Amino acid sequence: MASNNPLTLSIDAMGGDEAPEMVIDGLEIAAGENPRLRFLLFGDEAKLSPLVDARPAVKKVTTVRHAPDVVGSGDKPAIALRSGRQSSMRFAINAVADGEADAVISAGNTGALMAMAKFVLKTLPGIDRPAIATYFPTIRGATVMLDLGANVDCNEDNLVQFAVMGEVYARNVSGIENPSIGLLNVGQEDLKGNQAVRGAAEILRTCGLPIDFYGFVEGDDIAKGTVDVIVTDGFTGNVALKTAEGMSSLFGFLLKDALTSSFFAKLGALIARPALMRFKDKFDPRKYNGAMFVGLNGICVKSHGGTDGVGFANAISVALTLVSNNFNEGIKEDVAKLLIDDDPVTTPEDDSQSPEAATS
Amino acid sequence: MASNNPLTLSIDAMGGDEAPEMVIDGLEIAAGENPRLRFLLFGDEAKLSPLVDARPAVKKVTTVRHAPDVVGSGDKPAIALRSGRQSSMRFAINAVADGEADAVISAGNTGALMAMAKFVLKTLPGIDRPAIATYFPTIRGATVMLDLGANVDCNEDNLVQFAVMGEVYARNVSGIENPSIGLLNVGQEDLKGNQAVRGAAEILRTCGLPIDFYGFVEGDDIAKGTVDVIVTDGFTGNVALKTAEGMSSLFGFLLKDALTSSFFAKLGALIARPALMRFKDKFDPRKYNGAMFVGLNGICVKSHGGTDGVGFANAISVALTLVSNNFNEGIKEDVAKLLIDDDPVTTPEDDSQSPEAATS
Repeated sequence: MASNNPLTLSIDAMGGDEAPEMVIDGLEIAAGENPRLRFLLFGDEAKLSPLVDARPAVKKVTTVRHAPDVVGSGDKPAIALRSGRQSSMRFAINAVADGEADAVISAGNTGALMAMAKFVLKTLPGIDRPAIATYFPTIRGATVMLDLGANVDCNEDNLVQFAVMGEVYARNVSGIENPSIGLLNVGQEDLKGNQAVRGAAEILRTCGLPIDFYGFVEGDDIAKGTVDVIVTDGFTGNVALKTAEGMSSLFGFLLKDALTSSFFAKLGALIARPALMRFKDKFDPRKYNGAMFVGLNGICVKSHGGTDGVGFANAISVALTLVSNNFNEGIKEDVAKLLIDDDPVTTPEDDSQSPEAATS
Repeated sequence: MASNNPLTLSIDAMGGDEAPEMVIDGLEIAAGENPRLRFLLFGDEAKLSPLVDARPAVKKVTTVRHAPDVVGSGDKPAIALRSGRQSSMRFAINAVADGEADAVISAGNTGALMAMAKFVLKTLPGIDRPAIATYFPTIRGATVMLDLGANVDCNEDNLVQFAVMGEVYARNVSGIENPSIGLLNVGQEDLKGNQAVRGAAEILRTCGLPIDFYGFVEGDDIAKGTVDVIVTDGFTGNVALKTAEGMSSLFGFLLKDALTSSFFAKLGALIARPALMRFKDKFDPRKYNGAMFVGLNGICVKSHGGTDGVGFANAISVALTLVSNNFNEGIKEDVAKLLIDDDPVTTPEDDSQSPEAATS
C-alpha cells in the first residue's frame, strides 16, 4: 500500500452516548492528524449533514450515507441482527464487506456489533471465534489482552487461536520482534486452573509454531507487564478489565480526596501539578479507547460508548494501525502454518456463525 | 461467650516467607491489643522456644508445641495432605478439630491449608465446598468477596452457597443489617454470562431466603462498592483480586515516579506528605491481610505468605472477629432454612471431600 493512497473508514455515526456529535468531533481530530483519511459516515442524514457542513475539515473528506435505523444500546444481539438490517451499524459493516472501506468503527452496542460483524464479515480461515482485544497500561508500557467479552465460555482451541491472533498483533502492529504470550490463570504451576487453560498451555508448548509461550500468568502480571500478550476467556478478561478500570477510578477518587483534604495538601498538589497531570494522563481511558475485534475477515474497532471526540479519534487510529500493518494477512499466515503443522486447532463442528456467541 | 473468657488461637508458626520470626512479631502485636488472647504455637520447638522466650509478652500467653515437619510453599495439596501429617500446619488445624483452639491461622501454602482444613474440619451441613473470602477496599468502605481461588469450576449451587455464606458474613461480622449481594458477571442483563451465574441468579431470586439479591455486578462495581458482598467462582475471583492488587502496585509505582520527577514535584510531595501518607495507608495490603476459609466446621484464616508482623496480626484479628461473632452458627442457621424451604442447593453427589478441589 503506497503511503499516499487514501484510507477509507466506515463510521457508524449513531452509536455512543453523545452520538452523533462526538463522532463528528472525533472525525475532525483524526482528519487533522492524517490527510490520507476518507470517511463513509452512516446514519440519519437529516442530523448528520448540518453537523458535517459546519466542519469544513470533516466535510472535505466525508461522504454521508443515510441509514434509517439505529441499533439501541440495550438491544439484544440476536434481535439487532434480525431487525437492524437498515441500521447505521449494519450499513457501516456492509461497506467493509463490499470493499468500499478498509475498516469500520462504531461506538454502539458491543454485542450487536460483534454479532453483525461476524455475520457479515465472517471469521478468518482457521478461526472459530473472533475475540475482543485491547491495550492495557502496564509498568513496562502496554500489553495486548484478549478476549475481553466476546466469548463467555472458551475451550482450549479457542484460547490457542486467541494466542495466535494476539501474537500476530503484538508483532505486526506493536512491532515487538518476538512477543511473549501468557495464559491468564490462578497460579503458575502446570496443575493450576481449569481444563481449558491447561489444555491450551499443552497445545502452545507443543504446536511447533515459533511462539514465545511464557506459560501461565496471574492477575497481577497484567499491570506488571510480565508478557506482551495476555490470553484469557471472555468472562475472565471482561471482569479483569473492568476490575482494573474500577481500581483506577478508586485510586483517582481517593488521591483527589487526599490532595484536597487540607491547606497543605492543596498547596503541595498545586506545586506538583504538572507532574500530577502527567500522571493522570497515563490513566486517561481515552488513550486506551478502541477495542479490536480480531479474527474477522475485515477490520472492526469498537469505541467505548461513553467516550468523547478525543477517545473516538483514538479508536480511529487503532483501526488505522490495523489496516496499515496488514494485521489480518499476518493472522492468516500463522493460522495456515498451525493447520499444516499438526492441525491441533481446527474444530470444524464448532464453526458456528451463531450470533449468540457474541451476546455477552 | 463472656467477654473476659480467653480465646485460644492455633498458629502455624512455620508458614510464610519470613516465618517463624514474622509470626512471633504478629503474636506480640495481637497480644498487646487483646488481653484475652492465648496461642498454641506449632512448629520447630528448637527454633520457636528461644524466639518466644525473648518476648515476655508473647511467652506469657503462648504454649509452644513441637511439629517435626513443614509444608513447603510449592507442595501440591494432595501430597501435603498425605505426607504432612506431622506438619505444623496439620497440627495447628487438628487443635481446632479437637476443641483445643477456637480458630487456626497460617501463612503457609494456600492449597495445602484448604485441603487439610477440609479433610480435618469437614464442611458445614449443606455446604458442598468451602470458599476463600476477603475484604476488598472500595469507595464506600469494604466489600466481602468470595470465592478467591478455592474452587476453579463452580456450578450454580456452589455460587448460591457462597452467597449465603457471604451474606451471613456481612451481617454477623461486618454488622450490616441487610447486606446486598451481587453476582459477578460480564453485564447486568439477565441473558449475560455463563450457565452457572444465570442459574445462581435464578435460585437467589426465587429461593425465599430473606436475602437482598442485587443481581449481576461487573468488575468495576467491586471498587465502587456497589454491593456489600460479591459472589464469583474461584477462577474469576482470584484473577480479579490479583488484577486489583497489580493495579494498586502500578498506580503506586507511577505516582511515586511522578512525584520524584522534578524539583517542584518533590517539593509539592513534601508539603502534601501527611495527606499522601494517609492515602498510601488506605491501600496498605497488610490492612486487608487475612483471607477467611468459609464453609468449614471450624474457623481457618490464611495470612498472605509475604506479609510481616503487622499483616499477620491483622489476620489474627480477622480470625478473632469470626470467632466473636459466631460466624459459623449463622451460616448453619441460614443454610438450614434454605434446606427446609425448597432444597434447591443440596447436591449430595457433589459432596466430595477430595483435596483436589483445593489445588488451585
